Amino acid sequence: MKIDILTLFPEMFNIFNHSIIGRAQEKGIIDINTFNIRDFTKDKHKKVDDYPYGGGAGMLMATQPIVDSIRAVKKLNKGKVVFLGPRGIPFNQEIAKSLSKEDEIIFLCGHYEGIDERCYDYIDMEISLGDFVLTGGEMACIPVVDSVCRMVDGVLSKSESYEDESFYNGLLEYPQYTRPAVFEEKPVPEVLLSGHHENIRKWRKFKSIETTRIKRPDLFKKYTITKEDKKILKKFNRDK
Amino acid sequence: MKIDILTLFPEMFNIFNHSIIGRAQEKGIIDINTFNIRDFTKDKHKKVDDYPYGGGAGMLMATQPIVDSIRAVKKLNKGKVVFLGPRGIPFNQEIAKSLSKEDEIIFLCGHYEGIDERCYDYIDMEISLGDFVLTGGEMACIPVVDSVCRMVDGVLSKSESYEDESFYNGLLEYPQYTRPAVFEEKPVPEVLLSGHHENIRKWRKFKSIETTRIKRPDLFKKYTITKEDKKILKKFNRDK
Repeated sequence: MKIDILTLFPEMFNIFNHSIIGRAQEKGIIDINTFNIRDFTKDKHKKVDDYPYGGGAGMLMATQPIVDSIRAVKKLNKGKVVFLGPRGIPFNQEIAKSLSKEDEIIFLCGHYEGIDERCYDYIDMEISLGDFVLTGGEMACIPVVDSVCRMVDGVLSKSESYEDESFYNGLLEYPQYTRPAVFEEKPVPEVLLSGHHENIRKWRKFKSIETTRIKRPDLFKKYTITKEDKKILKKFNRDK
Repeated sequence: MKIDILTLFPEMFNIFNHSIIGRAQEKGIIDINTFNIRDFTKDKHKKVDDYPYGGGAGMLMATQPIVDSIRAVKKLNKGKVVFLGPRGIPFNQEIAKSLSKEDEIIFLCGHYEGIDERCYDYIDMEISLGDFVLTGGEMACIPVVDSVCRMVDGVLSKSESYEDESFYNGLLEYPQYTRPAVFEEKPVPEVLLSGHHENIRKWRKFKSIETTRIKRPDLFKKYTITKEDKKILKKFNRDK
């Protein structure tokens, strides 16, 4: 997958030289490049921002440098132009999955108080990381790129790639334990040491359902309880 | 504000040497430090992860290095231990605001498939960035730290700090424009050039309400329309 990022802070994306995405770049599965929007301004002082019409605090990113940087990168990348902004679709795992199927994507990061509204004519999709304010689009672009790249075939090794994780089946993950069997008097639940795979599977399902019901009632409401779930809940609630 | 981050990838947090948070660190308003969890492992091969009990793909972060790193950093930082994890409270602007009032915070980033459940006994709060999967807690920690630090007094300059932005009043932002007045035949809306402050204010409110209604019906549902809003909507819908 080829990802080109338009930003005023290209150095922030050095983060993708590390860990899993860094390894995927070394392997050539992912190719992340950055372009500095400032390099495209026609202003003689290299300015990229200006005061908003109609007054108000903060500076806006002007149309010309953004539009010219999009036009330049489009010669190298045929993908969608995705803008990280507060009025976008709230990001989730489904969007990550769908974007991970693209061959090429262009990400545009705004900064300052935002971008001139006319820039939207050159943008295909706006994504919001969530209902909170960040210092710049870069801070939203980083987890979005990470989440999308993670889903690209070959990025995760076989042992890392599994379908069992949070938000795949609409439930939160069950608790997990590793060695030692007892840590400072805290033991691992007995069932996990039993070697009885079917009991372990059921216990994990029970814990997933219970955790979701308590911690995320909003997710739990959307989850459809199966016949098997009902049996599992009955059994474990009785044993409690 | 003093922030200490426990992570396997301290170098990822170099991102905070740039832009607004970088400036706040230079001014001494924010002090971000990282600690490598790997430095705390008692394993002779410096391992920090192990296979999950009960089977399953992926590796888990073991309890000992995490608990010992928390204990060590607690000697330097009296703040809450905040873990970035998928079962946490979904992050939003209210949480950012409330955390920005703390003097000290410890952030714990998980990696791999997650952390041993027994680590939760040493954690005060779990935050989830949203309903999507990331390669590591670092990717969630970065926007959370950014959003929290941004709200700390003195981090934003006067011209950057304003209460008018998205998610402050429950509506999305109105469109903004800067020079030139006409860009490639696209003009700025006339009202913004009128100098009539009261009309500009009303137009912006109308646009905020309309944009929220169309783009984020979920936010719009929670917003209480005021008497003045009703008048504004009536006027602009008639003029359309």
